[in-house]
Amino acid sequence: MKRMAEPYSEAERAALYRAIRERRDVRSGYISQPLDDETLHRLLLAAHHAPSVGFMQPWRFIVVRDESLRKSMHEIFLRANADAAATYDSERREKYSNLKLEGLLESPQHLCVVCDPTSERGHRLGRHTMPQMPVFSVVCAIQNLWLAARAEGIGVGWVSILDPAAVKDLLRIPPESELVAYLCIGHVDNFAEMPDLERFGWEKREDIATMTRADYFDRPYSFQEAGK
Amino acid sequence: MKRMAEPYSEAERAALYRAIRERRDVRSGYISQPLDDETLHRLLLAAHHAPSVGFMQPWRFIVVRDESLRKSMHEIFLRANADAAATYDSERREKYSNLKLEGLLESPQHLCVVCDPTSERGHRLGRHTMPQMPVFSVVCAIQNLWLAARAEGIGVGWVSILDPAAVKDLLRIPPESELVAYLCIGHVDNFAEMPDLERFGWEKREDIATMTRADYFDRPYSFQEAGK
Repeated sequence: MKRMAEPYSEAERAALYRAIRERRDVRSGYISQPLDDETLHRLLLAAHHAPSVGFMQPWRFIVVRDESLRKSMHEIFLRANADAAATYDSERREKYSNLKLEGLLESPQHLCVVCDPTSERGHRLGRHTMPQMPVFSVVCAIQNLWLAARAEGIGVGWVSILDPAAVKDLLRIPPESELVAYLCIGHVDNFAEMPDLERFGWEKREDIATMTRADYFDRPYSFQEAGK
Repeated sequence: MKRMAEPYSEAERAALYRAIRERRDVRSGYISQPLDDETLHRLLLAAHHAPSVGFMQPWRFIVVRDESLRKSMHEIFLRANADAAATYDSERREKYSNLKLEGLLESPQHLCVVCDPTSERGHRLGRHTMPQMPVFSVVCAIQNLWLAARAEGIGVGWVSILDPAAVKDLLRIPPESELVAYLCIGHVDNFAEMPDLERFGWEKREDIATMTRADYFDRPYSFQEAGK
């Protein structure tokens, strides 16, 4: 009879769940002092310990501090955001326009996260039937970094309202590499208790039970009382 | 002058970094006792607190416990794995064939993670220029669950050597939903110190510094001494 591996201590588990629960997509409150290299290195190492298909480690990180680049990125956002706003009817558009969706000018650095799908590292293991796996590995790295940043008191905000081709062009990213995420990152003055989009009435948090199924997609999972 | 948000305590940060460092892709050592609902619910809630584009929460979870389904899934793996092995030259193929790449028969439950990209929840916010964002949100959820599982002493292994169409067919997943991950999950007897693929000489861990750039993709980032 095999013995079960021990869980971490209660305090350690609580710390991890705290970071998961308190992580926020931060679009405001950034402080102008840039991250020091020691902190940045620690966050990138957290990312680097993510799972990757075939141990491919396909993530590449561009730390963007140059002020004119950050301004140009903000302009790329403004164009994409205007296009997005125009797709909503008037009521939703007003709501949309009142949301603050990025902190590109306030955060003293950005982190552009790119996937190099052409790398032969990992020898294509695990990628034959699911070619998206390298990109998924990069997303796992981002989530590691995001949680580590929260525990360090550092804000991260993912800006997806950008034309990827324009971003790649600006940062001289080669055509074969894929833009996965463009992040604002930096010290902040506080973390909101609720996600902004919940706080401002854009969307509500769903009950996880409604999203869980048993054996087949069309069969609801019934949690026992204890799990509710 | 704004005040910086406080980091977590040293012990809390250490706990988070521990989970990040010790998380493994687990393919062996699963114990037959299934997860209880309370634990499963806690892990799914960790996933559910991931960031999602527009607060869309596009993740759907199928808990697969039925034995014949698990066996069928293993057969789907065997077919994809034989096809993958055939793509390597003889030396690499031998190495490949010696790797244990899944624990589908040993783990008493699987977790199939699906993205519903058709959901109107989130009102398409953040998805206009980057349509992959819902799937990326689902991957963030998986990484949250994976770290939480590690802290609970529970193993998770991501099996990507599967034909997604066959998986969807078997679990009656509708065509418009995307298979993001098929995971083995369960109590295990231990966690390896190193990733299997590193331990068995498939691939090495790269130095993160070589993957970091300054402002442009083609400009290396020079970490100050402290960050090295």
